[in-house]
Amino acid sequence: MKMKNNTFEEIGHQLNAAETISIFPHILMDGDALGSAAALCHVLRCMGKDAAVLIEDKIPDNLKFLDKGYCTYDTGKYMDCDIALCIDCGELNRFPERNEAFLSGKTKICIDHHPTSGGIGDFNYIDPEASATGEVVFELLEAINAEIDSETANAIFAAITTDSGNFQYSNTTKRTHQIVTKLYDHGLDAYKTSVALYENESFEKISLMSHVLSNAEVFAGGRAIISCVSQDLLKETGARMEDSEGIVSMMRSIKGIDIAALIKENEPDKIKVSLRAKGGDVGKLAVRFGGGGHEKASGCTLYEDLESAAARIRAAIEESLCRE
Amino acid sequence: MKMKNNTFEEIGHQLNAAETISIFPHILMDGDALGSAAALCHVLRCMGKDAAVLIEDKIPDNLKFLDKGYCTYDTGKYMDCDIALCIDCGELNRFPERNEAFLSGKTKICIDHHPTSGGIGDFNYIDPEASATGEVVFELLEAINAEIDSETANAIFAAITTDSGNFQYSNTTKRTHQIVTKLYDHGLDAYKTSVALYENESFEKISLMSHVLSNAEVFAGGRAIISCVSQDLLKETGARMEDSEGIVSMMRSIKGIDIAALIKENEPDKIKVSLRAKGGDVGKLAVRFGGGGHEKASGCTLYEDLESAAARIRAAIEESLCRE
Repeated sequence: MKMKNNTFEEIGHQLNAAETISIFPHILMDGDALGSAAALCHVLRCMGKDAAVLIEDKIPDNLKFLDKGYCTYDTGKYMDCDIALCIDCGELNRFPERNEAFLSGKTKICIDHHPTSGGIGDFNYIDPEASATGEVVFELLEAINAEIDSETANAIFAAITTDSGNFQYSNTTKRTHQIVTKLYDHGLDAYKTSVALYENESFEKISLMSHVLSNAEVFAGGRAIISCVSQDLLKETGARMEDSEGIVSMMRSIKGIDIAALIKENEPDKIKVSLRAKGGDVGKLAVRFGGGGHEKASGCTLYEDLESAAARIRAAIEESLCRE
Repeated sequence: MKMKNNTFEEIGHQLNAAETISIFPHILMDGDALGSAAALCHVLRCMGKDAAVLIEDKIPDNLKFLDKGYCTYDTGKYMDCDIALCIDCGELNRFPERNEAFLSGKTKICIDHHPTSGGIGDFNYIDPEASATGEVVFELLEAINAEIDSETANAIFAAITTDSGNFQYSNTTKRTHQIVTKLYDHGLDAYKTSVALYENESFEKISLMSHVLSNAEVFAGGRAIISCVSQDLLKETGARMEDSEGIVSMMRSIKGIDIAALIKENEPDKIKVSLRAKGGDVGKLAVRFGGGGHEKASGCTLYEDLESAAARIRAAIEESLCRE
């Protein structure tokens, strides 16, 4: 951790005293970012606050159920809030189009679990031991004796189950399961939430997955695998870039693979790289390319064409595995 | 439940008094059958018993790590045991080649969680509320104050995480997470176990999956999906039938799908059908064809050619969805 955390009580005191609160999940929202933001927003509204989740990009289809009227693109309406709270991220470049709104907040708070988090708040709580920011949100809500209803419980479960890889990833701990146990007491419907998250795949997504997997290349003596999602492939399959979510984990699941990389052409010359590790460490690798994340899951963005981005990442992975 | 359960204490008393114990997981072993059997066998051996897991078919690759010398095909060596204990199954036809060994046991015990379980023991404990037989085994071990070490904890976790669909299926409860929380206190390494279970896929399996998904047919107005694994497809992809595990769940995950069916040509004219439901109930459907299982996951075996089996299952699904 780069800085000392504030206490939940200090953060709770700030939230209690505030009237208007804007919440900032990172771009390319995942279940943890939006689930944590939605849970917090719901609780704050139940406390009588004027709270909203400010976003700048599309909510992925499988996460739309989490937004029960919390999310808005209207950042102008939320300038000069009492509190601007960034969640599941700790750097301004994780919400580039909303910096002005965030910085206009009278008090800035950062709640995150990324070990690389910048902790840009006046008050920060960053817990790299948490499998998900959702764990931190739950503990914050418990610490400040907030009312946790089934809507909040489902949103926190969504945050935790997605970021812990359904309790499979190495970030999952006894605490993770303890929190889920408690969520049941608050009305969690884990099945309904799981179906909403995972059982609403489109045919196009399945088709994209089949193509990406059959085009994948294994290298570094069978220890690494790489594949690409080009704009052409999206056109061919009818899928959208969000549909590539989960494919890189599937690539990693192959026997003997230590590192998997999925190279995504978000726009021409704007290449998003998703990295996953089984044996190796992809956190440092992503940082080298200006990205961030965890040891086992990280990402970065490269501003060049798909082929050269893929070649550079491939070379860096090969080098990192040989150096071991 | 068809019959009254015995108590854990009664079963514990039997186990304590016995010297030789043979354990019978069902054919086509899954993580729950073998994980539960391995956990129980390990504990019994630690108690000084002569215990073994009797099997008649191949251990799937991803489950081999669970067998630390427990499993044997040598049923002859385990005739006339003090206790014959069938686990994760409750009918003789779930271990057809081992009936004689089971029936030779002086006392028969059945530990299971299938609602359709026959409960063929002199002592039975069948809990259809448990997500996995692994939950029942844990509670039995706790109730009889057995020593639970990390090996046992990992095997029970394997049983639970596979049968609960990584805590996503509707059978997952607060109790499921409570048990996992306790397993951490007994030395559970959930990550290591998950990697062993899920992150050792073969390329051939991934290739088979791609083929089966792209050949799948959607019917019943978009509510059902069916696909086949023929012996020819196995040859083409280099995959084995066990590699088809998990594909049917992926088929079910498609938006709008209520029932998914995977029709597997185990041998010519011996067709294994795997059924999964999201909205519907496939338990009754499987029973109609002489099979069994749960509301959301079931299976049956048909003795006819692949095409006619697929056609019959397709028609039965269509009819069951229309009847609703």
